[in-house]
Amino acid sequence: MKQHMKTIRKEHYLQLAVLAFGLLLWFMPTPEGLKPEAWHLFAIFISAIMAVMVNALPIFTSSILALSAAVLTGTLSTKDAYSGFSQEFILLIIVAFLIARGVIKSGLGRRIAFMIIKRFGKSSLGLSYSVIAADMFISPAFPSNTARSGILYPIINALAHDSGSKVADGTRKKLGAYLMLSSMAGLTLSSTLWLTAMAANPAGAKMAEQFGVHISFGSWATVAFVPVLVLFVLVPWILYKVFPPELKETPQAPQMAVESLAKMGKVSKNEWIMMAVFIGMVFLWVMSGAWGLDKTAVAFLGLGILMITKIFTLEDLAQEGNALGTLVWFSILFALSLNLESLGFMAWVGGFISHAVEGYSWPVVYVLITVSYVLIHYFFVSQTAQMLALFSVFLGVAVKAGVPPEMMTYMLLFATNFNALITPQGSSANVIYAGSGYLESSEIYKYGGIVTLVNTIVFLTIGTAWMMIIL
Amino acid sequence: MKQHMKTIRKEHYLQLAVLAFGLLLWFMPTPEGLKPEAWHLFAIFISAIMAVMVNALPIFTSSILALSAAVLTGTLSTKDAYSGFSQEFILLIIVAFLIARGVIKSGLGRRIAFMIIKRFGKSSLGLSYSVIAADMFISPAFPSNTARSGILYPIINALAHDSGSKVADGTRKKLGAYLMLSSMAGLTLSSTLWLTAMAANPAGAKMAEQFGVHISFGSWATVAFVPVLVLFVLVPWILYKVFPPELKETPQAPQMAVESLAKMGKVSKNEWIMMAVFIGMVFLWVMSGAWGLDKTAVAFLGLGILMITKIFTLEDLAQEGNALGTLVWFSILFALSLNLESLGFMAWVGGFISHAVEGYSWPVVYVLITVSYVLIHYFFVSQTAQMLALFSVFLGVAVKAGVPPEMMTYMLLFATNFNALITPQGSSANVIYAGSGYLESSEIYKYGGIVTLVNTIVFLTIGTAWMMIIL
Repeated sequence: MKQHMKTIRKEHYLQLAVLAFGLLLWFMPTPEGLKPEAWHLFAIFISAIMAVMVNALPIFTSSILALSAAVLTGTLSTKDAYSGFSQEFILLIIVAFLIARGVIKSGLGRRIAFMIIKRFGKSSLGLSYSVIAADMFISPAFPSNTARSGILYPIINALAHDSGSKVADGTRKKLGAYLMLSSMAGLTLSSTLWLTAMAANPAGAKMAEQFGVHISFGSWATVAFVPVLVLFVLVPWILYKVFPPELKETPQAPQMAVESLAKMGKVSKNEWIMMAVFIGMVFLWVMSGAWGLDKTAVAFLGLGILMITKIFTLEDLAQEGNALGTLVWFSILFALSLNLESLGFMAWVGGFISHAVEGYSWPVVYVLITVSYVLIHYFFVSQTAQMLALFSVFLGVAVKAGVPPEMMTYMLLFATNFNALITPQGSSANVIYAGSGYLESSEIYKYGGIVTLVNTIVFLTIGTAWMMIIL
Repeated sequence: MKQHMKTIRKEHYLQLAVLAFGLLLWFMPTPEGLKPEAWHLFAIFISAIMAVMVNALPIFTSSILALSAAVLTGTLSTKDAYSGFSQEFILLIIVAFLIARGVIKSGLGRRIAFMIIKRFGKSSLGLSYSVIAADMFISPAFPSNTARSGILYPIINALAHDSGSKVADGTRKKLGAYLMLSSMAGLTLSSTLWLTAMAANPAGAKMAEQFGVHISFGSWATVAFVPVLVLFVLVPWILYKVFPPELKETPQAPQMAVESLAKMGKVSKNEWIMMAVFIGMVFLWVMSGAWGLDKTAVAFLGLGILMITKIFTLEDLAQEGNALGTLVWFSILFALSLNLESLGFMAWVGGFISHAVEGYSWPVVYVLITVSYVLIHYFFVSQTAQMLALFSVFLGVAVKAGVPPEMMTYMLLFATNFNALITPQGSSANVIYAGSGYLESSEIYKYGGIVTLVNTIVFLTIGTAWMMIIL
């Protein structure tokens, strides 16, 4: 009890500290070259992020307070503040949340999980590798890492569940937390590996043409595969060391999985329906570009079929308050970040950096620009938004300072993907995991930060050396 | 079991019937004067409404299927289709949902409920009258019936709970269902009674000026109070007859309430906080017009304080999946209805009606126009939207046919409020009740339809007679 009171008191001190920090920034004179609204919005946004990082507030609470501060002070118009709620890709995450429940409930998730355990289940590390490998395998056909996270998440959820690692009974760290974080890290790599594995990649390749750099599916993969392969080996193992699952070696797991599969018997009617819906959805998602289909509407259709067939019911929906929580905090942070960009804050920071690197030799500029581009993702709630806002600016600065355009182009386009785990909201693909309950936001900041650091180091060393050989 | 199978089979037949109906409309030749998209959207929208009315699908399922149909057929752009999700007033409802949970959990809801029961609790009918009277009393200071529903709902929820009528254990019809429906009906009356009790009322009064009709707070109340008073007496009693609560006379309830209040003891710290937040929110809502505050941001602030003080927690949020469900279906239906309007469908219907009434004597036109205006609300998911779209058109038709402008103006402005219960989505004030679980959508269609019928009859008879005396 006393311990509990102490925790509460500590939390309140932290809240006051963050509030003081925010007020200090707010009342500071606005830096030259910025509109006051931009500076005020930055003060609100960075305070909200800080509150989550130091564990003063959950991300939901922090976001709604930031929103009310931004609107009630007139820093943001109501229209801008609420615009995130109607973003298709955010709604896609929410629907994916609900469909994931159907995958579990139908029994299909269990079955797939047992099949994976049967083959790779001797150790938690093995499971982690197999999940990331699967992601990399499907990703070239999947230009939406958000949709991909919606496919991987229910399987990982089932893997955790069936290994006795659940949120409700406090066993999240047994296996689930580790696997979720591994898969999030894996998504940063699978998105980096293929030109077609993330929505913004082709747009970036297009933008690079104005600097005379031409990128194809093949050239992208050739440049990316060496550092990505190294990281594929490295990252699950590092997470295993710094954020270890309590369940490590499970030599008897494959045999248990075989028995459990035998006990499950033949594929049930609900599993068949779930499989058909799932495959149908995946098929339509893959074809969405060619056929001009909206991915979110496809997901809604899938969910509707699951409801007609009673695989997902209104009673199930009533339990999914977390999905609402996720919708709220992500929509809010997305809108704040977007407005920080449209108010000119990002361009101001960009100008600042390009001024700072003036006069250095090109290798130094190359490193500084890369590191800045990675770190600045703390403030972006969308990989695509960062790329659209800063890629050309940063590339231009570097090229002017003598960095070879091709090298810098690839590095920034890769960084757009490999920096995604620096915050829970750093990619829409993170969000479904962050909302699962298996991971605390502060854990994502910490271990996601480590993943981002490792990614950056490997790309700056091995990745750069590889580029110098082949380009 | 057999009975259960029969119900399922019946449901599937109904689903097929609605689907056939929708396809038939879709493939019919588009009526002259309409764009094909408008007709197709109408086919989708009316099928979705039908599915809910005949109990073929829950409103959530019906809405998401309608959305995917509208988007995947290209009838609606994705931007238009998802626009409802970022509407402030819809988000306000959702936040009110969460705050209502805090009112219950803190114990404040119980205390207020017991205080009401102590005074009016001898019968369910008495409770119903007291709730509606309270609404009418606060409404002139409350230009948002949505916000008002957010205040009344937690109290009614507590009243039901503490009388042993809950959703979870199947006792919703004991008292809760009746009280919820009564309060929804009450909101149609409180909004009709005062110029300042609903956001669209002053806008309508303003629009009436171009027809030479001048409306003040006093003149509005004078014209409205006679029919509203009659309905105040009539409606709770009619609902009591057609939709009776299982719990009717409760002579011992007031004494029990006194004892329960004694047992609750002094007001707890959480109740004080909850009360302060609630009164603060209500105060800011009332001042929102004068001070230019966004009501939704105020609600988010209130929720944030409840979370910091742990009155509402993340664990509570996880249970609020129904709020997500409500956000989804209401946002979708709102967007569909709005687009039906912007695609010209409503104007087309308006033209149709004005053509139909040509040549009739003015009293006939007066009745036809009123009845049409009420019935057409089946297709509108916002009272304000209907008023903006049709009020001037309908008024113009009537005036041209010789109806006294003042009478027609008042009638249409009143009808904008008293027709709100014709569907679950007919007013944003309905939505929090419709999402409570105490009422099935088909019950709202049925008994809300009866309330609308009674409202319309009383306004056309007593209301009209009163106008002929005083105007």
